[in-house]
Amino acid sequence: MNYFSSDFKLGILGGGQLGKMLLYNTRKFDIYTAVLDASNEAPCKIACDQFQLGDLMDYNAVYNFGKQVDVLTFEIENINVDALEALEKEGVKVYPSSKTLRTIQNKATQKLFYVDHDLPTAPFTRFAYTSEIKEALNNGGLTLPFVWKSAQFGYDGTGVKIVKSADDLTDLPNVECIAESLVPFKNELSVIVSRSASGEIKTYPVVEMEFHPEANQVEYVICPARIPDEIAKKAEDVALRTSQAFNHVGLLAVEMFQTQDDEILINEVAPRPHNSGHQTIEASYTSQFEQHIRAILDLPLGRTDNKVGGVMVNLVGAEGYSGNVIYENIETIMKMDGVTPHIYGKKQTRPFRKMGHVTIVNEDLNEARRVAEQVKNSIKVISE
Amino acid sequence: MNYFSSDFKLGILGGGQLGKMLLYNTRKFDIYTAVLDASNEAPCKIACDQFQLGDLMDYNAVYNFGKQVDVLTFEIENINVDALEALEKEGVKVYPSSKTLRTIQNKATQKLFYVDHDLPTAPFTRFAYTSEIKEALNNGGLTLPFVWKSAQFGYDGTGVKIVKSADDLTDLPNVECIAESLVPFKNELSVIVSRSASGEIKTYPVVEMEFHPEANQVEYVICPARIPDEIAKKAEDVALRTSQAFNHVGLLAVEMFQTQDDEILINEVAPRPHNSGHQTIEASYTSQFEQHIRAILDLPLGRTDNKVGGVMVNLVGAEGYSGNVIYENIETIMKMDGVTPHIYGKKQTRPFRKMGHVTIVNEDLNEARRVAEQVKNSIKVISE
Repeated sequence: MNYFSSDFKLGILGGGQLGKMLLYNTRKFDIYTAVLDASNEAPCKIACDQFQLGDLMDYNAVYNFGKQVDVLTFEIENINVDALEALEKEGVKVYPSSKTLRTIQNKATQKLFYVDHDLPTAPFTRFAYTSEIKEALNNGGLTLPFVWKSAQFGYDGTGVKIVKSADDLTDLPNVECIAESLVPFKNELSVIVSRSASGEIKTYPVVEMEFHPEANQVEYVICPARIPDEIAKKAEDVALRTSQAFNHVGLLAVEMFQTQDDEILINEVAPRPHNSGHQTIEASYTSQFEQHIRAILDLPLGRTDNKVGGVMVNLVGAEGYSGNVIYENIETIMKMDGVTPHIYGKKQTRPFRKMGHVTIVNEDLNEARRVAEQVKNSIKVISE
Repeated sequence: MNYFSSDFKLGILGGGQLGKMLLYNTRKFDIYTAVLDASNEAPCKIACDQFQLGDLMDYNAVYNFGKQVDVLTFEIENINVDALEALEKEGVKVYPSSKTLRTIQNKATQKLFYVDHDLPTAPFTRFAYTSEIKEALNNGGLTLPFVWKSAQFGYDGTGVKIVKSADDLTDLPNVECIAESLVPFKNELSVIVSRSASGEIKTYPVVEMEFHPEANQVEYVICPARIPDEIAKKAEDVALRTSQAFNHVGLLAVEMFQTQDDEILINEVAPRPHNSGHQTIEASYTSQFEQHIRAILDLPLGRTDNKVGGVMVNLVGAEGYSGNVIYENIETIMKMDGVTPHIYGKKQTRPFRKMGHVTIVNEDLNEARRVAEQVKNSIKVISE
């Protein structure tokens, strides 16, 4: 198929920030692109060729949209999978596939998939309802502490909880869930694997999520990770095997733990461009967004190594501020070497809301990390 | 002024390819952008926040558009300058200024500006009409050969001619023009200077236009130029002085000749992002498009050095093909290391029409140049 002709149409489900960054690349390649999103304010509304309003969880909305396009992809996981499956049966190329998305959408199914495919992940027990956990604790089938995870998406902020005592279960929704062993880890790592429709496969360098020592929050994404080569090799290998097990087409971000004894365990995966790959825009030979487009259109994949070292800092709303957003000291950070702010354009800030990200690149990764700390200490997302 | 707020509006005159590449950066910074262009098919029509139809040479169209914005810039030189001047008087920030554009729009005035400011350029004579040239030749005021250049824009393809005999004058339009000495040169160089509203100034590395030995056409733009440091220093110095002489705000691309005896002579300038800076998107710490936005909004300028070596190849329509465009072997070039095609999205090709460009980056500039030759020999812009 000639993607570079006006006969071809690419569909994107979801019109958020990730979609917006995909659209820069479809425009670069002059690929006609239609976007479906429920919000009339979606960032993708401008920059796509055709924008359609519709609920991504609604069968008919997704099905009718998909029937108009040649290749269909998504930038968010909350999508009606039955519609994707029907579209696949009728010849629409859906990448990543409905099968992959169905497996990933449910955390219990996702974990079982790893077990079935001999992929390393932390031990867990599956429960049909949270209420069943107490019994398991009582009869010794489960021991404290553990990580409770809702199986289904859509419980923003309430989907994960560390349970230290039976009392911690009280406020949790009574839904399908898993109880996962609490694994002490040295590092949280991520590898983005790109795989094209015809099976060409390339991994991005392992990145490291550096945590704030007290707040226990990811502060910096660092590429490449400052870990020994053999650990990097191990993480890349697990990520590659995961992508192959899914027969994945497109990007798969594989988040992993490096345990205290240097085991690699899969935490979870995302079948799309990912926060841990934003620095690829400035640091890599091929941005993750361009690579996703290459992969799903079965074009040759681009180089995934770095031109220079890259560090990414998320811009989140400061505590204590809600309302019309102001980026305090943005000019200060733009004075620093190799700093690029990406502002997502949300008009209202609130505590911890993701408002953008900042990439810092330098030929010397340690220097990039040093500047990233200055960025973090300078910019503040507040309100008027 | 808070550019990152919804109160601010940037206006761009011209909605072509350069504007499209600017818009990626205004979206990255979430800057509200309005575009004026005469064509309903303008590439900027999608991706800007507000699109307006109007003739850029029409006083009222430009004036009325400009009254709605806080900062006004342009991506093309053919603009009604009187309207820009009126807007400046009424407080709209116009960058680059109407005065600069007025000087540049007329090649005779532009050349006189260099002379007045002690900037090196090839000797020339100014004529009110082409018909006056013959007399000058007869009375010995002018000698053959020389380069005839129409003073005004808008004579696409007929604006420049090498005149070897009086007969060559016959077919030229009888307009204001200059006769410029034909200077034998070793290299054609270009330096893009960025200068912000408050006077911060940074130059991009000198680039080299490599010519096809037989066709005498620019084949490759190579960054940095493969010239001795002292020549690069000289070219940068001339470019810097030119930007300062104009009191320029925004980007100024200064095209120069390196003569046989290593003099640097200004050929012409463009007050906007330029073809000789396209490789900055992939090769530089800061793309020329981002830098233009930074400069006109008086934000700190970004680093202008290269992350890696960059080579740019223009994609032009092949001879003998007109009609619906096909990019033959585009997948072949996308397999090569560090290759990014930029397709401008024109649906119809014709011989020599500019349809896009391809950037090739590599840590080793010679390797990038080698791959660029493979690209040039592989891809062909033909028709169905």
